Amino acid sequence: MIRRAVILSTGDELMTGRVVDTNSAYIAAKLYDLGVEVAAVLKVGDSKERLRWALEHGLALADLVLGTGGLGPTADDLTTEVVAEYLGVELKLDETTAQALKRRFEARGLPWTENNLKQALFPDGAEIVPNPIGSAPGFRVRTPDERWLLWLPGVPRELEAMMQATVLAWIAQASPGGGEISSGAFKIYGLTESKLDDLVKPLSLPPAAALSFRAHYPDLTLRLTIRGGQDRAAKFAQLTAEIRQILGAHIYGEGDVTLEEIVGKILAEKGWTLALAESCTGGYVGHRITRVAGSSAYFKSSCVCYANDAKVRFLGVKRATLEQHGAVSRETALEMAEGARREAGADIGLSITGIAGPSGGSAEKPVGTVWIAVAQEGRSEARAFHFQGDRERVILGASQAALNFLRTALLRP
Amino acid sequence: MIRRAVILSTGDELMTGRVVDTNSAYIAAKLYDLGVEVAAVLKVGDSKERLRWALEHGLALADLVLGTGGLGPTADDLTTEVVAEYLGVELKLDETTAQALKRRFEARGLPWTENNLKQALFPDGAEIVPNPIGSAPGFRVRTPDERWLLWLPGVPRELEAMMQATVLAWIAQASPGGGEISSGAFKIYGLTESKLDDLVKPLSLPPAAALSFRAHYPDLTLRLTIRGGQDRAAKFAQLTAEIRQILGAHIYGEGDVTLEEIVGKILAEKGWTLALAESCTGGYVGHRITRVAGSSAYFKSSCVCYANDAKVRFLGVKRATLEQHGAVSRETALEMAEGARREAGADIGLSITGIAGPSGGSAEKPVGTVWIAVAQEGRSEARAFHFQGDRERVILGASQAALNFLRTALLRP
Repeated sequence: MIRRAVILSTGDELMTGRVVDTNSAYIAAKLYDLGVEVAAVLKVGDSKERLRWALEHGLALADLVLGTGGLGPTADDLTTEVVAEYLGVELKLDETTAQALKRRFEARGLPWTENNLKQALFPDGAEIVPNPIGSAPGFRVRTPDERWLLWLPGVPRELEAMMQATVLAWIAQASPGGGEISSGAFKIYGLTESKLDDLVKPLSLPPAAALSFRAHYPDLTLRLTIRGGQDRAAKFAQLTAEIRQILGAHIYGEGDVTLEEIVGKILAEKGWTLALAESCTGGYVGHRITRVAGSSAYFKSSCVCYANDAKVRFLGVKRATLEQHGAVSRETALEMAEGARREAGADIGLSITGIAGPSGGSAEKPVGTVWIAVAQEGRSEARAFHFQGDRERVILGASQAALNFLRTALLRP
Repeated sequence: MIRRAVILSTGDELMTGRVVDTNSAYIAAKLYDLGVEVAAVLKVGDSKERLRWALEHGLALADLVLGTGGLGPTADDLTTEVVAEYLGVELKLDETTAQALKRRFEARGLPWTENNLKQALFPDGAEIVPNPIGSAPGFRVRTPDERWLLWLPGVPRELEAMMQATVLAWIAQASPGGGEISSGAFKIYGLTESKLDDLVKPLSLPPAAALSFRAHYPDLTLRLTIRGGQDRAAKFAQLTAEIRQILGAHIYGEGDVTLEEIVGKILAEKGWTLALAESCTGGYVGHRITRVAGSSAYFKSSCVCYANDAKVRFLGVKRATLEQHGAVSRETALEMAEGARREAGADIGLSITGIAGPSGGSAEKPVGTVWIAVAQEGRSEARAFHFQGDRERVILGASQAALNFLRTALLRP
């Protein structure tokens, strides 16, 4: 039975501050949703002595130590070796993994070096945890006193894929709720984490229910989880309805969806095509739209027109508009959106023009000022937004605002 | 003498994954710069038992435990109490801090409540660490066996202000010649982590030197660090030269730089302007170029032409070329780069056209096939690349290859 876990992140880069560890927060959130208490997070560098220390103390605190990192082929990847030593077992080559690694290298035309075989070595008795998207699998192994050690690669996307593919289901089964869980995600636009917290605080939650937040700017997710219990489904439906009532239009989607997926889905359903005109976001909105598989069905083009000349040349923005109102203005945003739509022959045009900083701001138009416009047949609209923070944050915030502005325009009857 | 530290972050929000802990990476980086080794990072929730556990085990590993969080006025702020208990000393009210707190409340017109006095209680014998920007100060206290406990608030900006104001200077003085470190980063293009490891393995490293790797696809960093010693500078220079010799053109930059910053720097130095034509990367290359502050000086525009129509309309690609060779071909890539350059009036044009997947591939041109071209005055060149992995990975890989192709073209005499 897994009631309590310790998360163990390893890597010298964590000890020197070169990397912010986001894995442990991701894992903690998932364990929390499953009703598994996180007793502690431990991080140590790539040192045998420290790894051993962490293993010992982690296992003293918890039924499961979920470790990450140190599974690669290089000399500073010590995890498997230390775990085997700690358990007093041999390392054993897994032929299936070894063959898969060799095939992977062949398929990519990469020269095979013997050190890669290290990734096919596991402590004797370990079960292999498949890695659907990377080269190094993980493993889990039972200790003599019936605790679990589970190890995953430190690369966030591989770790997350493996958690989703098999690890979470396994933990759910082994946890007190026995995997009997109702869980739903609400994707939030236009609220800070603390404002969201304030809004949902009045909800009266039964003991088996938990709300958790995950802020990953510019995205914010609220998750409702109910574990075990006979009336779980009814409670879940009721709380879901209450959350929808409270948050209303701040919910842009439900489930593990992104804003660009939602926008893409609406466009595909309408059979509409989209053209973009980006200035301060520099191509980021186009990137978000096109990272969705199948987006070529509705996405025609984006003109990233940083220079004013380019706005005139590619989008037909009038020089007089730029001179009179400036590049960051309602008028320019509207002409950009209309130009993008017209020049690309698309059904709807979206434009973003603003000041990402750090320079370029003024008293009247400070850094973070962004105009966003949408142009449709017979209707155009624009709105100003103001974002705080550094250049990257303004770009991220503006991309989110633009996609949401587009979403609401698409949904309007 | 402070040679080794443990960082201790506290707070229930860290155990439920609601907050990503950036403090520990910040502190680790600062300690590393001072030559203080971080033995481990421990995180526990707001629980007396766990806090005591972390204090004990932290002090067993290090000369200094630098803790954060739990200094506020509410019931779940347990730090000071637990530390005093652990040391077997009383809590003592610091009058100066108490007066400052009351004045702070008055100045802000906030009602004073007695629980705020909790923030003026410190373990007997502690020295107060001033907080220049917030209400809760920190403290440091010596343990009977001559180790240090230092505690700061968990709010990142207060913590950082306090570190800068007094804490770092104090640690530097207490450490064995802090700052005695030579460290350098090499940014790598075109090698896998294991291939990089293979290449640098023959280097003979003195005991004080360490090589570390960081793979953050599509980026790869090799770091060389040498601590202490009189001939540190000479050794560092020698090893740096050897690394340059071994890796040659695979090093695209040295120091904490990105490929887009390097490309931007070369463009700025040449006084050249850049125009892009992106297809499969959907705007991501434009985003990378423009997330560099000051990029408006050299970046003119990017045409993200997903649809063939858009390639013809905005870039002047010939319909015959598209029909005869396809959108993903040397010919189309060249016309796109030339078109981007010509239409935007830029000095250099860069194009990317490929198949990001999951659909759209064929036997002849499988998913991951990407053509990249650069057009300059009187010279154009194109090259095919093949990337493995999912859509996101192809996009990331193609963006890196495109920026590096541009970099090498810019550097060619």
